[in-house]
Amino acid sequence: MTDSHPLEADILLTGGTFVTMNVNRDIVDDGALAIKGSDILWIGSAEAARTEIRASRQIDTRGKLIIPGLINAHSHLAMTLFRGLADDQPLEAWLARIWQVETAFATAENTRVGTQLAVAEMIRGGVTCATDMYWQYATNTEAATAAGFRLVNGPPMIGVDGPTGALTGDLETRAREYIVAHLDDPLLRLCIQVHATYTASEEMLDVAAKLATEFDLLFMTHASESKAEVETVTARFGKTPIEVLYARGLLGPRTLLAHCVHLRDDEIALLQETGTSVAHCPESNLKIGNGIARVPAMLKAGVNVALGTDGAATNNDLDMFGELRTAALLHKGVALDPTVLPAAEAFAMATINGARAVGLSDRLGSLEAGKLADLAVIDLGAPHVTPLYDVYSHLCYAVDKHDVSDVFIHGQQVMADRVLLTLDEEAIKAETHSIARAVAAACNG
Amino acid sequence: MTDSHPLEADILLTGGTFVTMNVNRDIVDDGALAIKGSDILWIGSAEAARTEIRASRQIDTRGKLIIPGLINAHSHLAMTLFRGLADDQPLEAWLARIWQVETAFATAENTRVGTQLAVAEMIRGGVTCATDMYWQYATNTEAATAAGFRLVNGPPMIGVDGPTGALTGDLETRAREYIVAHLDDPLLRLCIQVHATYTASEEMLDVAAKLATEFDLLFMTHASESKAEVETVTARFGKTPIEVLYARGLLGPRTLLAHCVHLRDDEIALLQETGTSVAHCPESNLKIGNGIARVPAMLKAGVNVALGTDGAATNNDLDMFGELRTAALLHKGVALDPTVLPAAEAFAMATINGARAVGLSDRLGSLEAGKLADLAVIDLGAPHVTPLYDVYSHLCYAVDKHDVSDVFIHGQQVMADRVLLTLDEEAIKAETHSIARAVAAACNG
Repeated sequence: MTDSHPLEADILLTGGTFVTMNVNRDIVDDGALAIKGSDILWIGSAEAARTEIRASRQIDTRGKLIIPGLINAHSHLAMTLFRGLADDQPLEAWLARIWQVETAFATAENTRVGTQLAVAEMIRGGVTCATDMYWQYATNTEAATAAGFRLVNGPPMIGVDGPTGALTGDLETRAREYIVAHLDDPLLRLCIQVHATYTASEEMLDVAAKLATEFDLLFMTHASESKAEVETVTARFGKTPIEVLYARGLLGPRTLLAHCVHLRDDEIALLQETGTSVAHCPESNLKIGNGIARVPAMLKAGVNVALGTDGAATNNDLDMFGELRTAALLHKGVALDPTVLPAAEAFAMATINGARAVGLSDRLGSLEAGKLADLAVIDLGAPHVTPLYDVYSHLCYAVDKHDVSDVFIHGQQVMADRVLLTLDEEAIKAETHSIARAVAAACNG
Repeated sequence: MTDSHPLEADILLTGGTFVTMNVNRDIVDDGALAIKGSDILWIGSAEAARTEIRASRQIDTRGKLIIPGLINAHSHLAMTLFRGLADDQPLEAWLARIWQVETAFATAENTRVGTQLAVAEMIRGGVTCATDMYWQYATNTEAATAAGFRLVNGPPMIGVDGPTGALTGDLETRAREYIVAHLDDPLLRLCIQVHATYTASEEMLDVAAKLATEFDLLFMTHASESKAEVETVTARFGKTPIEVLYARGLLGPRTLLAHCVHLRDDEIALLQETGTSVAHCPESNLKIGNGIARVPAMLKAGVNVALGTDGAATNNDLDMFGELRTAALLHKGVALDPTVLPAAEAFAMATINGARAVGLSDRLGSLEAGKLADLAVIDLGAPHVTPLYDVYSHLCYAVDKHDVSDVFIHGQQVMADRVLLTLDEEAIKAETHSIARAVAAACNG
């Protein structure tokens, strides 16, 4: 490349430290990154960019960190509506309260608002892609992708059409129609979902397996979240949740299992052998009292472990920096070993492992030419991120969601200097407060 | 009180929700709080304030939460200079690195900068009082209190005059001189310190006990932080650290022990019987691989448990909201019980329990007339704190340090709308970067 024929780019981020998360884990100091359309066109040094890149727009990122957008591998976005509604209670009491309000308030119109609130929160926290699991997948996918957010979502095989419990007609036909109509949505990674082996029929599991294979879709479900779940499923099927999924052909490189708190060694081996991914949700697991997943053992066995926040009714936020920090701290304390889950490995869980978990590691999870331009810029001006010795340590133990200044998804800037560009935050907050007042009145009535 | 004779106040915060943390745990919606001099003059409803209070200055706190300033019950403030310098390493490697840089760089001038950086970070996070433990207590206390920050600090009985290891002459004489000269500092709660039973001589422990009794000072030390410490001390004294302290008369209501990770049931009982307080530092304990303190057992036994961040080289921040959240989440997961350490109880650890731990529960830790005006105002405008159902749940699981908008200490406003009023943040950051460059060069050299 000579300076007489520079590459034409739409946007050039120039200066600062680029944390690529490529296979070599390259960190480019005083780097630059060019975006063209939806993709990363080029990444290199700021000096090389001066001759190799001609960009319509330059953004000065000196003194900042530029990272792959974080990937939230497990959530129920619209549950932001019920954030903090029922905490610190036994699981049964919590479920009773949440089901009560979901039955009354989880309408498509309300969950659209809850999804928008979730997307606003996640973009502010450097999250560029999330998985979702909720009844109104069509409405919520439309809401998230309209805001320029990348979503992993698709028809859930749950047998009922919403929290009111009306039976769905032909699950497979309806799912197939949605899938065919949305195969080419640029911001949607389609998946097929089952809530869990303890709530699904064998027929639902088989339909999910069939559709996932036919359309090469991701398959997502909850698995082995609580001791009670494992006991219930074992009593019903004579198999653990992991064994049930394996028996129905539902483990494999296209499968993402949320939680996996209670696994035996042979189940961890089975996840590794089949290439199944896990979404570790440490804060939700702690808060509901489900326990602590055996993440070091899974990683040691070679299982791909991503990170998720779970819904805001059980966390109570969608803060992937917080989740990253909790994961990195927790497993050291449990193992009595400070070398367990080093910062760089924890950060990989929130980025490249997440991309692999949703089947998009060729397109997401690292800053590399040819990949989608999903990235976040982190300001290092605050006292709590001063000084900086080690980038991964900072990202894991010091950087906070509020340090994110700018976010790009699919090449589009969705936050600039902490101002959201694709969502009307004040309107979303006003709508949320209105819904929350009704929820609170119903709960206290 | 009639409206013809209103109380004269300097500042009136009016509107919003006041989380008092008084014995009844009153929460005053649409409340008001009047400050006169260093103290809270009055707290009540915004409506009553209109007739009962005449203030020179009114601050509109509608839609916000007003809380007692958080109390960081264990830290080494100047270690902000070494934030993230040595992570995820075995304890021996970490100690070797930290001692290397402390020997070279922990000069009084440098630790002044590190202390100012720590105070900036803590004020931004709603912390109004912290304990400190470092060699240069005089310099660092001066730096913190000059910024209007409330500090618990005092002479450490460590036998050496600084990280260079020069032997101190007469520890007791020097300590006594400092104590006598600073007994009346309004922002300083004097204490006497010993690093730990495994580094102190019996003489040092006895001098500490004598001075603490003579001047009614707080006594602070590390205790039972790691298994190795308990083993070392037991091998040397035939007693655990707790038993050694008890034998030297150093347990009691004026004693604050940091960590207490590895305690037997009878040691917990001894802490309760003697009225000794504990500073729980969950993130540091996890990160260094020391384990998980038995906080639910301590609380059940009636031990006063406060919260601390520990130093920024082992955490890696001074974020009490993060510590609060980690504590509340962690113990539920370990106990497999979501009702363990409810949000309100965790928040008490960060406020009123902290005040009790430093011997100032009659002056700090709750919003009550006659107490010192140390408080923080929390903005609820961000998506991650929308909506609000439960105040304690929010404070524990959703509110982030960046949501703090205004902070008052001893009646003085030290942060207004996220701008620090008593510290030159840019200068402190520039000085820190300069020190950090030298530290990094020395480590890589």
